[in-house]
Amino acid sequence: MIRNPLLVPDLRELIQAGEAAALREFFAESHPARVAEMIQDLDLAEGNAILEVLDPRVRAEVVSYLDFDRQIELVEKTAPADAAALLHLMSHDDRANLVKHLDEDHADEILRRLAHAEREDIRRLASYEPGTAGAVMTTDYATLSPHLTVREALDQLRQEAPDRETIDYSYVVDINRKLIGLVPLKKLILARPTARIEDIMRREIITARVDEDQESVVRKIAKFDLVAIPVVDPSDMLVGIVTHDDAFDILRREQTEDILAFGGVSSDPEADDEPYWQGRVTSSVRRRIKWLLMLFLAENFTYPALRHFKWVEHDWPMLTLFLPLLLGTGGNAGSQTVGTIIRGLALGEITRRHFFRVLAREWFVGFMLGAILGVVAFCYAWLYRGQSPAVSAVIGLTILGICMWANLIGALVPMIAHRLGWDPAVVSAPAISTLVDATGIVLYYSIAILLLMKFHMQ
Amino acid sequence: MIRNPLLVPDLRELIQAGEAAALREFFAESHPARVAEMIQDLDLAEGNAILEVLDPRVRAEVVSYLDFDRQIELVEKTAPADAAALLHLMSHDDRANLVKHLDEDHADEILRRLAHAEREDIRRLASYEPGTAGAVMTTDYATLSPHLTVREALDQLRQEAPDRETIDYSYVVDINRKLIGLVPLKKLILARPTARIEDIMRREIITARVDEDQESVVRKIAKFDLVAIPVVDPSDMLVGIVTHDDAFDILRREQTEDILAFGGVSSDPEADDEPYWQGRVTSSVRRRIKWLLMLFLAENFTYPALRHFKWVEHDWPMLTLFLPLLLGTGGNAGSQTVGTIIRGLALGEITRRHFFRVLAREWFVGFMLGAILGVVAFCYAWLYRGQSPAVSAVIGLTILGICMWANLIGALVPMIAHRLGWDPAVVSAPAISTLVDATGIVLYYSIAILLLMKFHMQ
Repeated sequence: MIRNPLLVPDLRELIQAGEAAALREFFAESHPARVAEMIQDLDLAEGNAILEVLDPRVRAEVVSYLDFDRQIELVEKTAPADAAALLHLMSHDDRANLVKHLDEDHADEILRRLAHAEREDIRRLASYEPGTAGAVMTTDYATLSPHLTVREALDQLRQEAPDRETIDYSYVVDINRKLIGLVPLKKLILARPTARIEDIMRREIITARVDEDQESVVRKIAKFDLVAIPVVDPSDMLVGIVTHDDAFDILRREQTEDILAFGGVSSDPEADDEPYWQGRVTSSVRRRIKWLLMLFLAENFTYPALRHFKWVEHDWPMLTLFLPLLLGTGGNAGSQTVGTIIRGLALGEITRRHFFRVLAREWFVGFMLGAILGVVAFCYAWLYRGQSPAVSAVIGLTILGICMWANLIGALVPMIAHRLGWDPAVVSAPAISTLVDATGIVLYYSIAILLLMKFHMQ
Repeated sequence: MIRNPLLVPDLRELIQAGEAAALREFFAESHPARVAEMIQDLDLAEGNAILEVLDPRVRAEVVSYLDFDRQIELVEKTAPADAAALLHLMSHDDRANLVKHLDEDHADEILRRLAHAEREDIRRLASYEPGTAGAVMTTDYATLSPHLTVREALDQLRQEAPDRETIDYSYVVDINRKLIGLVPLKKLILARPTARIEDIMRREIITARVDEDQESVVRKIAKFDLVAIPVVDPSDMLVGIVTHDDAFDILRREQTEDILAFGGVSSDPEADDEPYWQGRVTSSVRRRIKWLLMLFLAENFTYPALRHFKWVEHDWPMLTLFLPLLLGTGGNAGSQTVGTIIRGLALGEITRRHFFRVLAREWFVGFMLGAILGVVAFCYAWLYRGQSPAVSAVIGLTILGICMWANLIGALVPMIAHRLGWDPAVVSAPAISTLVDATGIVLYYSIAILLLMKFHMQ
């Protein structure tokens, strides 16, 4: 909680009165994310008036927290020299991401005004494949040489600290920049000042490859409770770090992608990371029509299935009336199972070796659900819809069968997808209800024929 | 990547040969999560043999990383005095969680052997409401008094460091333990040794209330890029911290819960945090049957809708054959929209003020999808299924209408749920397809009557 929140009207007043000192004092103590939020509520000119009074280093931090569209707008409307000064102080991953999305000419104008090393750093970071460790890593970390003493290392960190996002961990590299160790600041504080870094550093380090999938990087950060993970190239040279806060954002995007996939929107490496408003309508249509057409194709089998049993209608016309209810219930039970399995797989609670146990469990759950709903459906058809006990029994038994069947394939299909190395979330709720539709029709009329005709029940 | 991974058979050999020194040396450099993983692959006796050779502090860390079931099993089979020694070194949140799940008598036996302060700490942490900041926070953090000098503060931290999970941030509290500031270790290193803590500490701090929902705590950690967030009681007294790695786990559970809800499994505060295998089958049935019954009730309206239009069948019996295809497609389009909206809401990209823009956008997407699929469906009915152009037109137009309708309610319903303060993910894919089913039937036959009868088309 921030005490003493300044409201937008108050802010406007201070800006108009040109009260730079008051503004600076107020914002000096606020978290940059909070300042960014307030700026976002103001128009561009007012926002810039606030940014101008801030200390340049704070300003750079605040800009990183602005909505990405606003960052672009801001930099595009800033003189190249001022933009370069801003980029110089921004965190390395944020500025690379920003430059990547600028108009090319404008980006060149700005880059020309930066020091060679910084220009190269931005170009390199911006060049990695989206979705890899390289594309999300930053390069502002502290490195130490293994031969330094603890005292020398601390002196070096003291000098560098103002330019580093964090010095809580220092990475130890040899003369070829090969990563050979890790030293937490805590360990430096505790060690004898004359000890050598190579004697106190941790040598077993969890690392990520620069071309490693970002999801796998996040999994490592989560599993090993890391604040940051060092990223190395194929020759073990340290090229960057991915920090826990960036991992957090990646996790949020990746996991909500599962919801999208589960809803039946196909994934698209280009567009998955796009915020809702940045994606174009046509891109949304493209990602959805693919699945809808495939499902249309699969649903099309309901037509021959129904036609095949059309003759049953002659004696029992009421059967069709229950069809959407039965198919709908089957699809619902199947969606529930898929959701349960996808979650278990995503959390790593269900693994390959659980295959048959999961099947048995879900099938049993399907049996219990089907038994309860079957009794409900029997009573519903008999007492509420006035059908004969025989027809009502067909309805009840179909519900039982369809629930067991839907649960079985709802568990089977995502687990098979997982075994094949696919994302299990591509087995969407729509896919399962579609699968249940065609097979459910066959099940329904088969039970009807068996009970009503073979056994001459009425 | 860990170099030189020791394989399970090698491990077994070392254990059987009683090579304690070799085991200890190997594991000394490994990440505790990695050691825990290897122990998990061994049986209980073998695992214990490894734990025994480890340094007690490392052992406590490794135990925290074991599967929770295994932790329980381990502690239950350990003599109370040894279990107490283990708990003494474990991180405070992990041990409180462990004690909470132990058999009560056994827990008492262990607690009796701990120092009074530790016992109280465990009891207090275990007493908070599940799902709140209190239930996920830990109490092993460093505090400083505001009047200390930087040199005194560093000396104090050096002494305490071995017992603290982290000293990267120290919390400044007054004599009543009221939280008044925050000092990063980095700042202590940079400051003059004679400066006072109160002069260098950050005073504006983002905090969480002890009864705050864990999801809200996680959102703060993510928004402000925090490594840890301090937790205060109603009188602003510091009572704990929630660390970024715990926030990570919470985020994973919460977001995958959305998948469950979206699949149509109702949420259950008692069971949501239960791993797949810990939940009982009956609890799974209970969470699912509720929704299935409600959806059954809603689907039941398809019956009167179909009966109402039964007479249309007389002249155009082929219409029924297309019914599952049309309803299925509508449900699929609706599920996609719900998935898209839930994701946008979860990421905060869609907010209240976007209400009408989202509706317009999704409705337009529905129009485009419906137009494409409508043409496909028209050709399909006409050319592949040999229907008359008029009947084919009914099919095509129904697809168009049903897609627009499904997209509209697929966007509308989760946004209304969000406005009402409900979790938008309760608007599951099954709920939307069910809504589309009953209304889709009415739409279908209305178009058929209009085109085929009113306009006397054949």
